[in-house]
Amino acid sequence: MTVHELRPAADEYSYVFGGTAPRLGIAPGDIVEFSTEDCFNGRVTSESDLPSAVCDFDQLNPVTGPIAVDGAEPGDLLAVHFIDIRPARSHAISSTVPHFGALTSTHETATLQEPLDERVWFTELDLERWVARYRARTSDYELEMPLDPMHGVVGVAPASNEVRLVVVPAAHGGNMDSPEVRVGTTVYLPVNVAGAMLSIGDGHARQGEGEAIGTGLECAMNSVVAVDLVKGGAPAWPRYENDDYLMTTGSARPLEDCYRISQKELVNWTRDLTGLDALDALQLVSQLGLAPAANVCDPNYTMVAKLPKWAVRNAEAYGGVHRRLRTAAEEYRAARG
Amino acid sequence: MTVHELRPAADEYSYVFGGTAPRLGIAPGDIVEFSTEDCFNGRVTSESDLPSAVCDFDQLNPVTGPIAVDGAEPGDLLAVHFIDIRPARSHAISSTVPHFGALTSTHETATLQEPLDERVWFTELDLERWVARYRARTSDYELEMPLDPMHGVVGVAPASNEVRLVVVPAAHGGNMDSPEVRVGTTVYLPVNVAGAMLSIGDGHARQGEGEAIGTGLECAMNSVVAVDLVKGGAPAWPRYENDDYLMTTGSARPLEDCYRISQKELVNWTRDLTGLDALDALQLVSQLGLAPAANVCDPNYTMVAKLPKWAVRNAEAYGGVHRRLRTAAEEYRAARG
Amino acid sequence: MTVHELRPAADEYSYVFGGTAPRLGIAPGDIVEFSTEDCFNGRVTSESDLPSAVCDFDQLNPVTGPIAVDGAEPGDLLAVHFIDIRPARSHAISSTVPHFGALTSTHETATLQEPLDERVWFTELDLERWVARYRARTSDYELEMPLDPMHGVVGVAPASNEVRLVVVPAAHGGNMDSPEVRVGTTVYLPVNVAGAMLSIGDGHARQGEGEAIGTGLECAMNSVVAVDLVKGGAPAWPRYENDDYLMTTGSARPLEDCYRISQKELVNWTRDLTGLDALDALQLVSQLGLAPAANVCDPNYTMVAKLPKWAVRNAEAYGGVHRRLRTAAEEYRAARG
Amino acid sequence: MTVHELRPAADEYSYVFGGTAPRLGIAPGDIVEFSTEDCFNGRVTSESDLPSAVCDFDQLNPVTGPIAVDGAEPGDLLAVHFIDIRPARSHAISSTVPHFGALTSTHETATLQEPLDERVWFTELDLERWVARYRARTSDYELEMPLDPMHGVVGVAPASNEVRLVVVPAAHGGNMDSPEVRVGTTVYLPVNVAGAMLSIGDGHARQGEGEAIGTGLECAMNSVVAVDLVKGGAPAWPRYENDDYLMTTGSARPLEDCYRISQKELVNWTRDLTGLDALDALQLVSQLGLAPAANVCDPNYTMVAKLPKWAVRNAEAYGGVHRRLRTAAEEYRAARG
Repeated sequence: MTVHELRPAADEYSYVFGGTAPRLGIAPGDIVEFSTEDCFNGRVTSESDLPSAVCDFDQLNPVTGPIAVDGAEPGDLLAVHFIDIRPARSHAISSTVPHFGALTSTHETATLQEPLDERVWFTELDLERWVARYRARTSDYELEMPLDPMHGVVGVAPASNEVRLVVVPAAHGGNMDSPEVRVGTTVYLPVNVAGAMLSIGDGHARQGEGEAIGTGLECAMNSVVAVDLVKGGAPAWPRYENDDYLMTTGSARPLEDCYRISQKELVNWTRDLTGLDALDALQLVSQLGLAPAANVCDPNYTMVAKLPKWAVRNAEAYGGVHRRLRTAAEEYRAARG
Repeated sequence: MTVHELRPAADEYSYVFGGTAPRLGIAPGDIVEFSTEDCFNGRVTSESDLPSAVCDFDQLNPVTGPIAVDGAEPGDLLAVHFIDIRPARSHAISSTVPHFGALTSTHETATLQEPLDERVWFTELDLERWVARYRARTSDYELEMPLDPMHGVVGVAPASNEVRLVVVPAAHGGNMDSPEVRVGTTVYLPVNVAGAMLSIGDGHARQGEGEAIGTGLECAMNSVVAVDLVKGGAPAWPRYENDDYLMTTGSARPLEDCYRISQKELVNWTRDLTGLDALDALQLVSQLGLAPAANVCDPNYTMVAKLPKWAVRNAEAYGGVHRRLRTAAEEYRAARG
Repeated sequence: MTVHELRPAADEYSYVFGGTAPRLGIAPGDIVEFSTEDCFNGRVTSESDLPSAVCDFDQLNPVTGPIAVDGAEPGDLLAVHFIDIRPARSHAISSTVPHFGALTSTHETATLQEPLDERVWFTELDLERWVARYRARTSDYELEMPLDPMHGVVGVAPASNEVRLVVVPAAHGGNMDSPEVRVGTTVYLPVNVAGAMLSIGDGHARQGEGEAIGTGLECAMNSVVAVDLVKGGAPAWPRYENDDYLMTTGSARPLEDCYRISQKELVNWTRDLTGLDALDALQLVSQLGLAPAANVCDPNYTMVAKLPKWAVRNAEAYGGVHRRLRTAAEEYRAARG
Repeated sequence: MTVHELRPAADEYSYVFGGTAPRLGIAPGDIVEFSTEDCFNGRVTSESDLPSAVCDFDQLNPVTGPIAVDGAEPGDLLAVHFIDIRPARSHAISSTVPHFGALTSTHETATLQEPLDERVWFTELDLERWVARYRARTSDYELEMPLDPMHGVVGVAPASNEVRLVVVPAAHGGNMDSPEVRVGTTVYLPVNVAGAMLSIGDGHARQGEGEAIGTGLECAMNSVVAVDLVKGGAPAWPRYENDDYLMTTGSARPLEDCYRISQKELVNWTRDLTGLDALDALQLVSQLGLAPAANVCDPNYTMVAKLPKWAVRNAEAYGGVHRRLRTAAEEYRAARG
């Protein structure tokens, strides 16, 4: 088991997917321990730090990477299994952001009104008890919320030499902002360039489905992934797998296109794993599938389609790569004590 | 406890919401035992009965009702608690429907292609073991699926003298096709006309989120509801409550507007139950809320927004009407043995 | 030439399409002189009359009718040719309307912001010089705008016993708000019920494409139409024809579905008039067609697809009914002096 | 008057906006004569050449450029006036493209159907008579269509170091596919990087509004532009101006967001040119504006908002740069004879 470490200095983060030289090279099967900065680049440190005042909008959503994977070629599938995602500070930041979010005017859903007020919430994290403490800004209402850490951003270099801002989710992954990207999940990404060029960031201590306000409980993370490669297995859109579910994603606008993409992908995956034809697979997915929103605030929205694995009689996807990475994760944890 | 029975003959179903004389009158607090026909009006009885051949498209989606509720006036809230939803036959029917469904051309998402082929699945229901047996049409793949019965349609007469086809979900309820409308859920509807005029139908033995294919496991049902009234409490859009969650709905197009409506409704409900201001409520909902699709196939799409009740410190909505109806349901079950 | 008159008293307007007894019966070929009230029901008479204060929201958008047409049966086409549309007062009213319009939050595109301010513009009409005088509310900017009168609403009773508010545009016509519905245009509508039940209203002294603010230059009108019937010719969606263009419409959400519907309709119409197959017709329409927005503010949006008649080598639609109604219009004008 | 020439060899085209070294440097006020290849890269030469067979999908939509403009800095406005657009061959090619176009399934509006058949139309251009000859593929229907040459693609390097495929229209311009980009139009683009990096391509001998089929009458062009710079004048989205109209654009999804963006931009431009406040400008635009679709097939859709210049009392935008470029065009033509 080869374990790498990648802990960028302040000037070593990336802000785009694509067109960037690798900061680490690994082999399939390797493990990477890494740190990520929060989406505000660490500049919001109290409730009086408004993002529009303290942040540089060309340096939002820093990602750690890219990581080049030996032997990864266009058409391959990159499997990224999340072994650990742990808040690096004892607080998280959330905020409204002018012209961003599902319940305000945006640059695309353009209106003549002023956007919602900018407000910051500083949320203490109790890593012992694994809870975040919500404190209202305009009353004394408080509430403990269980932590459920995730990475909003995971992706690779896009196809066709494109370079995309980290904030954009698309076929190469990116800012999907799905709470499903938690410990125990394997993320499958299509490889578009030699080396794949994996980057990860945008940790949330937790986040609701859709991320209506535009931010989760944003925090720097110390995380660990195991990475593997399936030659020739590239999916059209990112997929996830955990012990219970097969999951597909679609990132587009309008939101029904996210639903269409993710459902069609799940129908195709079901068909491939069961030998059903497309309509029989559609019937199965339609009666057994779940369809949560991931984000309804980013430049593309994202939906997830989920099917319990018993629906495919536990047929193993991609030659059992999730199972193998699960085992590697257990070995890593055992070795680390 | 007053218990009514409403079991329509074949010619006693309704096909619209609004403009229809009541078929039953009840008082707040009463219980109604009723039967519903399936969405095909019972005409599809085998896999060779194509809906387009055997159904009359003006008589799809029959509903049982309307039921007039004494004292219900515009501006009131009608609470409908589902005590029982039980398949009335030992089979359910599902099908593709030409120009209907999320993954085919429709009359609105109009293309020049032929729509997907029409295909019917006849699914046996084992009510003892509470499972449905999926059988592929083009292979020998079979699978047991747990039953999770629901009513796709529940609604009242619309506002402003409109009359809407049952297939349409909107602010008056209707064909929301949410799997959340199961036993144990209380549905809250705005009263738009004297008597409210409640109708229910479109039972599904189970259905995935989004109903991609356009139909669930459609079956006739024998169901029981307890109905109550909250004077002056009309919500702008239908809401649901069960023992664990507060839920709001939005039915519109495009799908992001369903998300916006349901999230704004959940923010407003949270604000009302906690005293938080709108932004503090938005922050709470954004970090703790769930956002599943209900339908992405009907004339309006529907999304649901869910908040665990502990997030509002278990504040009781509408004076505890859900809790009272839960108790009434238990008394009814005890009395029925 | 039979000429009817229909000038409703204040309590004789309708506010819905469908479910209403006719107020006039005519025969195919007849002419109807009629008056319409403005969309505010005449209640906004100065710039200090805010619609939200002075209007009854169940009595907006009054229409004149319905008019029953002898012999009209489901499946027929109703042809309505506009001979005259003349403002009945020397002013028109326009306004923002809270939660209505393309550039503000609405009930469906729901946000947490306050909607745009409500403001009324009282616009003098000079019927001699055929201009409207724009006067800014917050400066001394003034401008003469040419009149181009149109009816925002023209439609028939919907299919399947539905009753729809006048404000809704759909397959039965209704509030399409297209500037193309001006003098010289023939509107083709599908007949859904015996008698068709034609209603017309919502006159605008002029209106831009899309009606971004949510209102045109709203004014009461004195108008004249010639009405005819084409047995068995019902289009799926309303169509228009003038001396130069064939036009189709689509009313739905999102706006691309309006485009899809109207383009598919225009492809089909072109195919029917030329004998081209669907792809050859698509090619012709794609290179020669125009595609203006009609409304992007109503419960359904509307787009229009236009093809110059020379593209179909001037093939006559529906047996030349537009030409015949044009001739009848000239005869009517000649007779009236 | 400095006149440059830019006629790329086959391997000198670009396929992206951004991240590319300039192929020509010019000064503000200069004129550029240039050639462009068609969107198929010249590989479709007969009706039996299907694009999916003969094209390399990473080398579609070649553009000529980028052209670096001396002194152009982020925040400036680049003005590109089209002096000439002339087909370089005596034919144009149009086609359906699998999973592309408004009336077929696409990668985003994903369905389980097969896409529309692929078909190519080879259209002769008569440059003397300035007409294209439409010939149906499945009948002997023929038709002369007037030429109306335009460039589907005009844009600059995107902001924030993004690199975008040429096929994408967005805030940096790109594949807007607007028929308004014809001779006599000045296109205004925001400068995002030093030198602006202007590229132009995708000539169409003519194209209908919306480009429903996904292609215009695609042809190589010999074109001429005059380029100028307005320091500090960058618009948020591309704008156009011709002798009669001010025009704004919005490129996004869904299509109503294109409408919203373009209308808001036109309201803002009107406000800036007249001193009206936002609501008074909205009223003017709503009654006088036009709103044609540009494309409803590309990765982002595009709409255009148009206001006649008399509505702003012929106030000159950007210090009269359009007028000056118009004059330069006349001088160029006079000099060329």
